[in-house]
Amino acid sequence: MCQGPRVRLDDTACWARLGDAGHGVLGTVHAERGVDAVPVVFVVDGDRLVIPIDTVKPKAARRLQRLRNLAADGRAVLLVDHYEDDWSRLWWVRVHGQAQEAEPTAPRLDALARAFTAYAAAGAVTSVIVLAPADVTGWAAGPSSA
Amino acid sequence: MCQGPRVRLDDTACWARLGDAGHGVLGTVHAERGVDAVPVVFVVDGDRLVIPIDTVKPKAARRLQRLRNLAADGRAVLLVDHYEDDWSRLWWVRVHGQAQEAEPTAPRLDALARAFTAYAAAGAVTSVIVLAPADVTGWAAGPSSA
Repeated sequence: MCQGPRVRLDDTACWARLGDAGHGVLGTVHAERGVDAVPVVFVVDGDRLVIPIDTVKPKAARRLQRLRNLAADGRAVLLVDHYEDDWSRLWWVRVHGQAQEAEPTAPRLDALARAFTAYAAAGAVTSVIVLAPADVTGWAAGPSSA
Repeated sequence: MCQGPRVRLDDTACWARLGDAGHGVLGTVHAERGVDAVPVVFVVDGDRLVIPIDTVKPKAARRLQRLRNLAADGRAVLLVDHYEDDWSRLWWVRVHGQAQEAEPTAPRLDALARAFTAYAAAGAVTSVIVLAPADVTGWAAGPSSA
């Protein structure tokens, strides 16, 4: 099914895909469970990834576990994964780094509102997580997806 | 945008969605990086999730980091995340548990081959990870996606 070459994406290609992706999965360290994973949306802000804490999407708790995890251990991973039934078109980009809660500055709120219409409403974003990448890697199943 | 109620999915709904999903993100513990995340496909086998180790999809290394991680620390999370631009249709299901490499028994290989045509080829699946769920949770953005 996927007989083509497997392509390691270079840094430029990884960042281009991160810029287009909009959403991914954030992994954080949890003291007892070892690892947590949550779906997130994000925007690229220079060399940082900015993940909103919002009042819009469904979540279980008011003080989010992801924030408690990051306050205790800032190591994090963000995976953007493109899946489809045609495996010759698979690709993913992964960012390891340090993440922490930060101020939702006006430029960050503007960037989020431009990217996601739900964030145009005042108060929709209450805080942000900023992920500082230490290592960015990406793979594609073949030239057609690279 | 997403004004409807947020719905916690019950166990039956979570397992139904896991059975239909086919792919997700596996998070494991990494001694230095804290947490790793990789895209995976999987099938439900009774009350277990079976994740193939294959020769088909793009990967970086022959001895996969996810297997090294699980050999050192079996704690794992699998997240199935449904994303679309219409946030009233978001949902996710998350499974925390213990995972370990296991024999790719004939029934497991058959189930994987039925679910993914690429696995019909002999030798496509070289091993499996079996995830034993300890905690399964799921959320949907509203009734339209629940």
